[in-house]
Amino acid sequence: MSTAPLQSQYDEFKQLGLKLDMSRGKPAPEQLDLSNALMAALDGYAAHDGTDTRNYGGGVGLPEARALFGELLDVPAAQVVVDSSASLSLMHDVIVYSLLLGVPGHAPWMGAQPVTFLCPVPGYDRHFAICEQRGINMVNIPMTEDGLDMDLVERLVASDASIKGMWCVPKYSNPGGVVYSDEVVRRLAAMKTAAPDFRLMWDDAYRFHHLGDEKIGMANILDECAKAGNPDRAIVFASSSKVSWAGSGVAALAASPANIAWWTKHAGIRSIGPDKVNQLRHVRFLKNKATVEALMEQHRALLRPKFDTVLALFEEHLGSVPGVSWTRPKGGYFIDLVTPPGAAKRTIALAKEAGITLTPAGAAYPYGLDPEDSHIRIAPSFPSLDEIRQAAKGIALSLRVAISQ
Amino acid sequence: MSTAPLQSQYDEFKQLGLKLDMSRGKPAPEQLDLSNALMAALDGYAAHDGTDTRNYGGGVGLPEARALFGELLDVPAAQVVVDSSASLSLMHDVIVYSLLLGVPGHAPWMGAQPVTFLCPVPGYDRHFAICEQRGINMVNIPMTEDGLDMDLVERLVASDASIKGMWCVPKYSNPGGVVYSDEVVRRLAAMKTAAPDFRLMWDDAYRFHHLGDEKIGMANILDECAKAGNPDRAIVFASSSKVSWAGSGVAALAASPANIAWWTKHAGIRSIGPDKVNQLRHVRFLKNKATVEALMEQHRALLRPKFDTVLALFEEHLGSVPGVSWTRPKGGYFIDLVTPPGAAKRTIALAKEAGITLTPAGAAYPYGLDPEDSHIRIAPSFPSLDEIRQAAKGIALSLRVAISQ
Repeated sequence: MSTAPLQSQYDEFKQLGLKLDMSRGKPAPEQLDLSNALMAALDGYAAHDGTDTRNYGGGVGLPEARALFGELLDVPAAQVVVDSSASLSLMHDVIVYSLLLGVPGHAPWMGAQPVTFLCPVPGYDRHFAICEQRGINMVNIPMTEDGLDMDLVERLVASDASIKGMWCVPKYSNPGGVVYSDEVVRRLAAMKTAAPDFRLMWDDAYRFHHLGDEKIGMANILDECAKAGNPDRAIVFASSSKVSWAGSGVAALAASPANIAWWTKHAGIRSIGPDKVNQLRHVRFLKNKATVEALMEQHRALLRPKFDTVLALFEEHLGSVPGVSWTRPKGGYFIDLVTPPGAAKRTIALAKEAGITLTPAGAAYPYGLDPEDSHIRIAPSFPSLDEIRQAAKGIALSLRVAISQ
Repeated sequence: MSTAPLQSQYDEFKQLGLKLDMSRGKPAPEQLDLSNALMAALDGYAAHDGTDTRNYGGGVGLPEARALFGELLDVPAAQVVVDSSASLSLMHDVIVYSLLLGVPGHAPWMGAQPVTFLCPVPGYDRHFAICEQRGINMVNIPMTEDGLDMDLVERLVASDASIKGMWCVPKYSNPGGVVYSDEVVRRLAAMKTAAPDFRLMWDDAYRFHHLGDEKIGMANILDECAKAGNPDRAIVFASSSKVSWAGSGVAALAASPANIAWWTKHAGIRSIGPDKVNQLRHVRFLKNKATVEALMEQHRALLRPKFDTVLALFEEHLGSVPGVSWTRPKGGYFIDLVTPPGAAKRTIALAKEAGITLTPAGAAYPYGLDPEDSHIRIAPSFPSLDEIRQAAKGIALSLRVAISQ
């Protein structure tokens, strides 16, 4: 570490004129290149059952695409729907259908009383944006090392029938990298809810996105819900966005037979069917769980050095700074840098002045309000290793300047 | 025509053991083949502005895709959004956002009073299904040779503020083949509506789908609305579904700047961006209006003989049957076969027994209720010419048997 005064180190860094965007968890071009064979994966347009994938129809997805995601998610193919590119859209539509029409056997969520969702924090800003923009109240739930403050969750859902749902990123959570323990999964599946039409929005976004050597598993939420007598409670979402191409993947929804029938009915009003050519292309390219895991190893080889670089530079530049800590994720796309209270916003502004765009302060919290102003989401995936090196130094410098002011 | 008794002709026809599905307006495999070059249309993944189409982002669509649809729809590119495959989904989402959140500057449609849409009949069953399933009342508006009973439309919208919208398939309507006159377009743009947040859902599905030699044009609804001081009234929908591949095309929405900003905001909550690889592929393949028109000529060459065959066989077998008539469309995908009152359902059942699946009776009316039970939608596009020949005979026979019973 330089011995020059902090401010002059920062000023010197600014002179580099960087222009780096680390605001979103975007795959790097080299990661997208891993799936370029997608474009040559088709040798025809017929699915196994003879379906011409170019034409209309097939609202639940191609049988072979459902089978593939069934294998990946450890769910029977009949309990999987495969749709177009974005799992976020499936989540959005589940909420919209629930608001307007109600979940199976229940009245629409929209009615006399307000609708509330529990939101583990820090969490994914796009989840919270769906709630905020569609008129759903949000309550923060602190995350813990093995998942959530389950005592709080159980107390809230048992006593308040306006709580209709909860967001969960159960593995390698965005941005904290938290992995739910099997105990947490089971308590979520079994807990008593005052609302009979309560739903767990189970965003399994990082199921195969390991960074460490260990491939962390997890109890199967749909099995646990069924065992606990709450078969319709969880809806699982997944996609190939960070497996193949982020903008042109396929997305899947897995749930109980009743939820699948409900989804199919309502989604069938919205569309005559998903892009089945892209589904067939993905089935041909991704093949099965073993080949997907092999592909994810290639992603890991590209991502791991970027995370290691950030972690090493944070250790070097921030290791001795009081009140500063960060996560060392075993998977996923983010590092959560925790500053002393009141320093996150200022750090992000200083980084911006130095050419490094970070996710806005507070984004990991409902309504954009980080109560302690202390979380900074670091997304190391997109920039090159050289850029990551500079960015990590710049962020560390910005934080130190922010604290010193 | 055979001189054998009608019933024995029908019984003999049944013996053929046909299995034909004419229920939907699906392109034939030969039509889909016209666009197989789509698969080889890409020589890279970068858009003009450098965007890596494989990655996240680009909610409003690629600039070159917006420019292409702008040229096709005769609208500035800035007033066009290009999304994923289905225009039906865009229509659905416009209605959902309007119900839940309201159109620009107005309260949500959902509230104290019921929401009503005007529905020109016969019309498109999937439009009516969106209203029925999302809780919107429907009022039938009789179509005329040049569009609609505009006196009725003007009277209704002027007096009833619960009427928030109206479905329009302005050219080669499904299933009647009606083309709105410029006068009808202008009256729709200029009429006084009691609801200040009234919307025309302008489904321009068949803009380039001519069957005759004449390429029928039409007044530009967005221009007419702007001229009349109602710039936000119309939202135009289009897609490449019946241009390239029905299930894997791209869809577009064109509207006023205020409506585009509104759409972009709400759709941005639902998705991180559309499939831009497919957009780039379509831009490379479809190129411009001239090449699209040339492609549509190839579609016409495949479709025209099928329509001519149905029309000739109807003339031969039904020309002298009292109370029976049918449309001779100049474009689009359908023929509307009009039976004497009370005979449509029975005809469709008899055709079904003989192996010909037709669109269910009543489908062209809100709630599936054809008040006179007299409309049968014929979709000649998908079967082969030989199959069409048999089907047209079988339908004619079924109708004659139905009437004779």
